[in-house]
Amino acid sequence: MTGTSDTIFLAVTGWDPEVWLSEFAKNAPQRKLVLNTDTDKEKVRYALVWKQRPGSLADLPNLKVIFSLGAGVDHVFHDDKIPDVPIVRIVSPDLTMRMTEYVVWQVLDHHRLGLRYRQQQAGKVWHEDRRQPAAHEVNVGILGMGVLGRDAALKLRNLGFKVSGWSRRPQTVEGVISHSGNDGLRDFLKDADIVVSLLPLTPDTRGILSMNLFAQMKTDGPLGAPVLINAGRGGLQNEADILAALERGMLSAVTLDVFNKEPLPKDSALWTHPQVIITPHAAASSSPSALVPEIIAQIESYERGEPLKNIVDREAQY
Amino acid sequence: MTGTSDTIFLAVTGWDPEVWLSEFAKNAPQRKLVLNTDTDKEKVRYALVWKQRPGSLADLPNLKVIFSLGAGVDHVFHDDKIPDVPIVRIVSPDLTMRMTEYVVWQVLDHHRLGLRYRQQQAGKVWHEDRRQPAAHEVNVGILGMGVLGRDAALKLRNLGFKVSGWSRRPQTVEGVISHSGNDGLRDFLKDADIVVSLLPLTPDTRGILSMNLFAQMKTDGPLGAPVLINAGRGGLQNEADILAALERGMLSAVTLDVFNKEPLPKDSALWTHPQVIITPHAAASSSPSALVPEIIAQIESYERGEPLKNIVDREAQY
Ligand SMILES: NC(=O)c1ccc[n+]([C@@H]2O[C@H](COP(=O)([O-])OP(=O)(O)OC[C@H]3O[C@@H](n4cnc5c(N)ncnc54)[C@H](OP(=O)(O)O)[C@@H]3O)[C@@H](O)[C@H]2O)c1
Ligand SMILES: NC(=O)c1ccc[n+]([C@@H]2O[C@H](COP(=O)([O-])OP(=O)(O)OC[C@H]3O[C@@H](n4cnc5c(N)ncnc54)[C@H](OP(=O)(O)O)[C@@H]3O)[C@@H](O)[C@H]2O)c1
Repeated sequence: MTGTSDTIFLAVTGWDPEVWLSEFAKNAPQRKLVLNTDTDKEKVRYALVWKQRPGSLADLPNLKVIFSLGAGVDHVFHDDKIPDVPIVRIVSPDLTMRMTEYVVWQVLDHHRLGLRYRQQQAGKVWHEDRRQPAAHEVNVGILGMGVLGRDAALKLRNLGFKVSGWSRRPQTVEGVISHSGNDGLRDFLKDADIVVSLLPLTPDTRGILSMNLFAQMKTDGPLGAPVLINAGRGGLQNEADILAALERGMLSAVTLDVFNKEPLPKDSALWTHPQVIITPHAAASSSPSALVPEIIAQIESYERGEPLKNIVDREAQY
Repeated sequence: MTGTSDTIFLAVTGWDPEVWLSEFAKNAPQRKLVLNTDTDKEKVRYALVWKQRPGSLADLPNLKVIFSLGAGVDHVFHDDKIPDVPIVRIVSPDLTMRMTEYVVWQVLDHHRLGLRYRQQQAGKVWHEDRRQPAAHEVNVGILGMGVLGRDAALKLRNLGFKVSGWSRRPQTVEGVISHSGNDGLRDFLKDADIVVSLLPLTPDTRGILSMNLFAQMKTDGPLGAPVLINAGRGGLQNEADILAALERGMLSAVTLDVFNKEPLPKDSALWTHPQVIITPHAAASSSPSALVPEIIAQIESYERGEPLKNIVDREAQY
């Protein structure tokens, strides 16, 4: 039987553990968190992980649950020694709302000519383009209709956009045109004026945002060539192909929150391209103060014998 | 009795009349539009106006209705020879949705640190600020809770923001804290982190966005000092005061779509201020193809003897 005296292993790299420790101290002072498992390996019941050091979860004989500190879990699967216990990911209204804000913000920035107006302002040019499309003339296509994609879809519908979605298995979302599987992708791409990627990074999706996909897009939407917004994971995109597609006019503009290598290296041509908007993996930063109470609630309900929620499919890797 | 053979006077300056003529030709070819009234003054039953030449509506003995081609009507009242007939303004879902897009876009741009991330991108700096406030921690205050203000309020609520509004008379909008009149303004300003102006320009509102108002704002919101967004009319704002308030840290950033003088003169310091976002009076351009059918429908229902909608209060001047 597990109990509140059991230890939680905080297996985090690239993120200051202090903020997690202090949120746990505030919300569940009776829980013991450790940053390494050199001693007392058998006491560890739970692991909270963000890019854990490979192998660091092995050899924990009483580990019951792995909690990913992010919505995505690709950072967990880079390790091939993950014990066979449930992996639970973050599904949180706080995180979902932040991601939807980001998607709506960037869709509107392209739809309402943000790049053009900022360029005009820099040159003190006053030129209104009166022939702007209305939202209902613009199709926003969302790659990945999971927790995040569905919420963004509903808020974009509420602003008047046409919205379509693509997922692995068929999904139904009110007012949204749904496509699924490899065949569905072609139809999805034929219609989309703004493509928003909210896919998880898995063996199936790695590198999907490449020339092969861009070549299937329309070229004559109301905004010209389509716009690409990727807030999923950097591994989804081929950055050389994105730059080439911009050069060839296959994409008119791009917003990227995630990159092959983060921080984005200084020598990347993405930084200075006039049609590229860059944000530093900030689309939906999990706020530890919002997430820790949700993780603690999951631990407590698990200890009462209730089923875990938001368990990752190990085979699909998301 | 009026009839379809009556003439419509298109009294437009600073806007190409061609687009209006062609939309009428498409939607109501039997209606006769004229660009001046030198002959046949007595045939003119309706006037469609945008900044009409002062006096040009006088001396039309059979004029029945003046239709403003914009939502605002300050451009009509600059003329002191307006005959005493109903003035009807534009209230159109197309225009409302565009304005709401603009407001949501600019609120999110400030809320999600657009200015900061664009500056970082220009310097190839990767720095995520993880402590971003959630929408529910941010109060968006809307000055002017009319057709446009109310719609923007609902869409901002839907994204999770706290929303409050200010109007002349008390208004009730679900989920929105309402303030009204001069006394209500003080309380409204105490709470607002992002102030959005969607007021009409009237004798009462001219110059309202001035140091006197900024001095009543809070200084310690989750975004620092408040943000001002004005998409109403340029005459609402004192531009020297806005620049001074930015310098003194009373405002942290500003978005302006409208200006005292349009086009904004090249020597305005607003163009180059790093915390100012400028758009060229493009927040909600009436699309003639969306508006003309609505004006024709109003004319037809008027001719069937039904009451006109969206009549302006001549005393309040909006
Ligand atoms: N940039 C940031 O700050 C940030 C923050 C949080 C999350 N994220 C990213 O956002 C991703 C999505 O999060 P979520 O919570 O929405 O995940 P989710 O609920 O698991 O949804 C994933 C969606 O992608 C679809 N999908 C997966 N593999 C696919 C494939 N091979 N072909 C077609 N569709 C496929 C899924 O299809 P089914 O519906 O058929 O399962 C599902 O609709 C996360 O994995 C993470 O990488 C980024
Ligand atoms: N930038 C652009 O592209 C663009 C495009 C379209 C419109 N606009 C501007 O947006 C304005 C608003 O349009 P609308 O359709 O929402 O107008 P509206 O329906 O007439 O609403 C005006 C609102 O302002 C309030 N108000 C007026 N005078 C006031 C005062 N002295 N004190 C406090 N509140 C006052 C009114 O209060 P009550 O509710 O008590 O009447 C009402 O809530 C237009 O007048 C126009 O100038 C700009």
